Amino acid sequence: MEEHIASRHFTAESIDVDIGRSIVIVNIQDAQELGLGPSSKVKLTKGDRSRSGAVAITKTMVPRGKILVSKDIAWALKLSNGELIGLRPYPVPPSFTALQKRLHGERISQDEMYRLIRDIVDGAYGEAEIAAFLTSQLYYELSEDELHSLIRAMVETGSKIEFEDTVYDEHSIGGVPGNSKVALIAVPTVAAGGLLIPKTSSRAITSPAGTADTMEVLARVDFSADEIKEIARKVRATLAWGGKLNLAPADDIFVNIERKLSIDPWHQMVASILAKKAAMGVDNLVIDIPVGRKAKVKKADEADQLAGIFIRQAARLGMRIRVALTFGGQPIGATAGPALEAKEALETMINRKGKKSLVDKALSIAGLVFELSGKVPPGRGVEVARDIFLSGKTHEKFKEIIEAQEGDPNIKPEDIPLGKHTYTIESPMEGAVTYIDNAAITTIARAAGAPFDKGAGVYLHAKIGYRVNKGDPLLTIYSSSSARLREAINLASRHSPLIVEGMLLKILP
Amino acid sequence: MEEHIASRHFTAESIDVDIGRSIVIVNIQDAQELGLGPSSKVKLTKGDRSRSGAVAITKTMVPRGKILVSKDIAWALKLSNGELIGLRPYPVPPSFTALQKRLHGERISQDEMYRLIRDIVDGAYGEAEIAAFLTSQLYYELSEDELHSLIRAMVETGSKIEFEDTVYDEHSIGGVPGNSKVALIAVPTVAAGGLLIPKTSSRAITSPAGTADTMEVLARVDFSADEIKEIARKVRATLAWGGKLNLAPADDIFVNIERKLSIDPWHQMVASILAKKAAMGVDNLVIDIPVGRKAKVKKADEADQLAGIFIRQAARLGMRIRVALTFGGQPIGATAGPALEAKEALETMINRKGKKSLVDKALSIAGLVFELSGKVPPGRGVEVARDIFLSGKTHEKFKEIIEAQEGDPNIKPEDIPLGKHTYTIESPMEGAVTYIDNAAITTIARAAGAPFDKGAGVYLHAKIGYRVNKGDPLLTIYSSSSARLREAINLASRHSPLIVEGMLLKILP
Repeated sequence: MEEHIASRHFTAESIDVDIGRSIVIVNIQDAQELGLGPSSKVKLTKGDRSRSGAVAITKTMVPRGKILVSKDIAWALKLSNGELIGLRPYPVPPSFTALQKRLHGERISQDEMYRLIRDIVDGAYGEAEIAAFLTSQLYYELSEDELHSLIRAMVETGSKIEFEDTVYDEHSIGGVPGNSKVALIAVPTVAAGGLLIPKTSSRAITSPAGTADTMEVLARVDFSADEIKEIARKVRATLAWGGKLNLAPADDIFVNIERKLSIDPWHQMVASILAKKAAMGVDNLVIDIPVGRKAKVKKADEADQLAGIFIRQAARLGMRIRVALTFGGQPIGATAGPALEAKEALETMINRKGKKSLVDKALSIAGLVFELSGKVPPGRGVEVARDIFLSGKTHEKFKEIIEAQEGDPNIKPEDIPLGKHTYTIESPMEGAVTYIDNAAITTIARAAGAPFDKGAGVYLHAKIGYRVNKGDPLLTIYSSSSARLREAINLASRHSPLIVEGMLLKILP
Repeated sequence: MEEHIASRHFTAESIDVDIGRSIVIVNIQDAQELGLGPSSKVKLTKGDRSRSGAVAITKTMVPRGKILVSKDIAWALKLSNGELIGLRPYPVPPSFTALQKRLHGERISQDEMYRLIRDIVDGAYGEAEIAAFLTSQLYYELSEDELHSLIRAMVETGSKIEFEDTVYDEHSIGGVPGNSKVALIAVPTVAAGGLLIPKTSSRAITSPAGTADTMEVLARVDFSADEIKEIARKVRATLAWGGKLNLAPADDIFVNIERKLSIDPWHQMVASILAKKAAMGVDNLVIDIPVGRKAKVKKADEADQLAGIFIRQAARLGMRIRVALTFGGQPIGATAGPALEAKEALETMINRKGKKSLVDKALSIAGLVFELSGKVPPGRGVEVARDIFLSGKTHEKFKEIIEAQEGDPNIKPEDIPLGKHTYTIESPMEGAVTYIDNAAITTIARAAGAPFDKGAGVYLHAKIGYRVNKGDPLLTIYSSSSARLREAINLASRHSPLIVEGMLLKILP
């Protein structure tokens, strides 16, 4: 039960420390008077603005009557240093009842869901409550009604961007290394076909590179909403980072906790993707679900189920959708890691050819977008996309996007810097590559420094079905740090990233 | 998968801010080089000591090469300001696999449980992971083997106190207002009967008063392990606070998160209680399970189930146990709140009589302890306890305990200060009291300021079955703050704490 205690006022300043949540540093005597302890929740108000936070207690950092607040609170309250703000204990937000229902498997209404998400975005809950909300989904799946409420609530509690023309987009649920570069080819192909595709994407969370990380090798990606609208107006496409745009901000909060718990409930994933897209005003969407051992979705029947959730939820949002199930049994193309992938995508567009797994996937997805537009008959999209790609228009459009995003449109693949420390693993025998372990490739690329170290990653000389001779190169690891390279080699020797002819590959570093 | 990155060394100082978890403030440039973001986990080492923490990022609070650590880290590492400590990214503690298994309902081994609890105590996990561990128990109960492993692990990861004589104890699972004073009568009765009963207890978490809060009205309660042993040697009993003793420290971490989520899984509760008792070397234990609407346990058959878990787990620990199911349908005695309860207990011992619900419960529990000792035949314990109580020996022993704990043994009930702001609710009609709402009494007493405001609480003039006339006092609210009193009155008017003759009590504040 909420206790309605009156606010006390404090002189507030913002503090330069970011712990990943909203905090308020309070003098111990003030805290005791207000009945607050470490991590107690409080509500802060200035005029008609309010924001929640967690208490940190100090004896010396602030005197009585004064508080320090984290930057997100200062921003939400539009605080100038030294202004007075109200603070009151806020032990139990009213939406807590809805959270309790969720934990015990009861259904919650659209209104309850909205207030819960509103409070999460407002900072009223700590990691514990958000983790419990997510963990509960492992046992009590959201109903389709609850999922719809969740998506709506995630959209409504953030900003929206509106475009004048019909908006197209494509999105992969990810989980396969090397996938970040697919959009670098698919998006300009769609735009070269005349459709508006203002794509925003995230940075890598658990993969070696997100599309935003990879595009950032070639151009700027952090734009404001107005800048994105301007770029899209000019070149009909963006390949930007969505992180600054406050689109469905609950998603960032959820993703952060999901990563800590290494869980990824399907309904929550659908909500994340569709909420971000709805906030961007997407009318027509192609979703890519890679299917394969060690991908997020292991089997075709599971993929069908997930696709069903996407299709029903998109329909309720008034969004037209196509879902593509793609082969996720090995990495896409030859590379994993931002610079390596940017280089491979650029080479592919310049040469108008490249790895089949990359070119076919990018053009199939672009083709589905064309089919969604109704301007291309069903089944013919990929041909239209391939014509555009082979004519060089994909590369031309990509150069326009780079230029609009303040990069050098004439950059050559060989100009892209890669990690200077490298190590190549060779085949210990003659035979065919029979298996590549996505998870091991990801682990090795990340240990080498990807995605933060742009030049780090893995280059695959061979893929499944390739014949190799003893001593042929199998994969090369790149890193900007010799210590990280050693670590990556060490992991490679433990995780057997490739298997030749059913024999485990032994590596002696 | 854990990435084994070498440590870097930093000059460290401790910082005077407590946010309820272990934090390390790192300069943004150092953080970027190490691939750390806000709330990333790190492992800190000094010599052979190590401790985990979460990263906070700053541009200005510390320069490169320097870090600030929270006090618990400084304490664990025995850090002197300015010393060098090693810091390395620690994204995934090895026990994370065990946590994952737990979340998906797989059984975990004793060794896995130990490492998981070890890492929790070490600060390697944030609230999210601990919340997920607890939430998972709502769906996948711990097996008896897992519960045993959990208890053992909780004991082994903390300190222990050993006594030379056989140790007796009693513990209530709580949930009924007014219960904190029962131990103030039961414990000296047991000690007056010649048994060693070094009771440590917690402060109130969600109730108006814990036994430690109530005893603190009369004496000091925060002692070190050596002091507790010395007091117990002198007077055969303590009524102390366990918070400083590092007994099963995982429990404090769990309780903090359970409170935030308002969940209390049974197996976890059994683990909490038995681990604390095992760490105190308790050989013989009486557990009190209050049963009633709005108590923790609603029905007798549920109580039997819970009692079964206690009995089997105690047996596996080599602890002799008796479980008492007691009436939890209304508050114990006439009072709820630290000073009010201390006063009632003291009056009851001085007068050698008091409310039946208090006297009978305290003596029944003391009697069961006597029966466990084997010196009193089964069924005869309560008579022995009553003789001690009526002879005045309970009060004599209580005075000894107060004195040993540095209080005034000759304190009179009327010397105990109560909240000076009071409000009495009167009966609106003639009739019998048919129901008292435990949850409402607790809410009202806490709104009035209990347990932090020692003088705050509720005095019940009438209990279930009492006949009252129109205008008779039903309950009086005490508070040291007029604002809090108003709030408590307001809640009382909304929550109908007493029902007279089946009519809802209307209160107009």
